[in-house]
Amino acid sequence: MPTSTRDRIIEASAALFMQRGLAGSGLKQIAAESEATIGSLYHWFPDGKDELAAETLRASGAAYQALVVAVLDAAPDIVAAVADCFAGAAEALRAGGFADACPVATVALEVASSDERLRLVTAEVFESWLQAGTERFEGGGIEPGRARELATLLVAALEGGFLLSRAAKDTAPMEAIGRVMTDMVRAEVGARA
Amino acid sequence: MPTSTRDRIIEASAALFMQRGLAGSGLKQIAAESEATIGSLYHWFPDGKDELAAETLRASGAAYQALVVAVLDAAPDIVAAVADCFAGAAEALRAGGFADACPVATVALEVASSDERLRLVTAEVFESWLQAGTERFEGGGIEPGRARELATLLVAALEGGFLLSRAAKDTAPMEAIGRVMTDMVRAEVGARA
Repeated sequence: MPTSTRDRIIEASAALFMQRGLAGSGLKQIAAESEATIGSLYHWFPDGKDELAAETLRASGAAYQALVVAVLDAAPDIVAAVADCFAGAAEALRAGGFADACPVATVALEVASSDERLRLVTAEVFESWLQAGTERFEGGGIEPGRARELATLLVAALEGGFLLSRAAKDTAPMEAIGRVMTDMVRAEVGARA
Repeated sequence: MPTSTRDRIIEASAALFMQRGLAGSGLKQIAAESEATIGSLYHWFPDGKDELAAETLRASGAAYQALVVAVLDAAPDIVAAVADCFAGAAEALRAGGFADACPVATVALEVASSDERLRLVTAEVFESWLQAGTERFEGGGIEPGRARELATLLVAALEGGFLLSRAAKDTAPMEAIGRVMTDMVRAEVGARA
C-alpha cells in the first residue's frame, strides 16, 4: 500500500523535529523531505505549522507508545518487561547512532513555556504513556496508586536515560538505570507476593 | 561587588538557552539582554557563539550542581537528601511557573547529534553531576558501583521529572517520582545496614 501524502508529511516532520526541534524545522524543508508542495502541506494542515506539529506529536507519540507497549507485553512478567524496556532503549540508541531517541521530548522542552497549544498536546501524549504504563504495573500485581507512581518514574527514567546516553554517546547510563529500575520493580512485586 | 560584563553575558546566555534553546538564541539578543555590545561579546568569546555556549553550559552546570549538592548535604542522611532533592525540584518548578528548569538539558538534546564540540561539553557537565551524586551515595553507605548506578537514576529521574512536570504544568509527576526514589534509596540503605 503506497504511503499517503499526509502520512509522508507527518513522517518527515517527525524526523526533522527529532533532529532539529520545532524551531529548527521549516515548512519548506518539511515539504522537501516529504516530496510534497507547500500547497499540499496547507491542504492537509490548513492551520499551518502549529497544526502539523500537533498532529506529528500525536502520531509519533502513539507509534512510540505502541512500540514500548509491545516490548512490555511480550515479556513473561512485569520485572522482565522493565528490564526489556531499558535493554530495548539501549539497543535503539546504539542502532540509531545515539540520534533521534524520543519523538516528543525535544519539542516538549521547546514548547513548555512558549506555545500553550503544543504544550497541551505533549501533556496529552505523556498522559497516554503514563496510563499505558500504569495498566501494565497493575497487571503485574501492583496497586493502582503505586502503579501510577512507578509508571511515572519509568517514563522519566527512560527520558532521562536518553538524555544522559545521547550526551555521553554511550549506552552505559541507560543500562545502569535499567539495572536499578529492574531491581526496584522486583522488590515492589516481591513485597506484594 | 558589581557583576563583570563577562558574567552578565553568561547569565543572559544561560537564561535565553533555557527559554529558547541554542538555535533560538541569537548573539544580538544575548548582547541586548546583557547590556553589552556585540564587540564586547567577541572580546570575551573570540570564537563566537560556540565558545559562549560552551562557557555558559560549564558555568550554569557548575552552579546547578552546587545548588543540588547543597540540598543533598544539608539533609541528615541520604534518604532524606533524596526526598529533599525532589521536593526542591517540585518547589523550583512551581516558583518558576514551570519554566527554565534545567540549564543543560534543552541544549544537550539540541546538540547531541549536531554539534560534537558542545555535545562533549554537555557530557562533561553530566559526568560531573554523576560523580557528585555517586560520592553522596557512597557517603550514605552504598558501595561504589551501586552508588554510581543510583546517581545515574537520580539525575535521569530529575531530568525526566522536569520534562513531565513542565509538559503537565503540574508538580504531580515530580512528586510521584520523588516518592518512589526515596522509598527505593531507603530500601537500598536498609539492605546494607
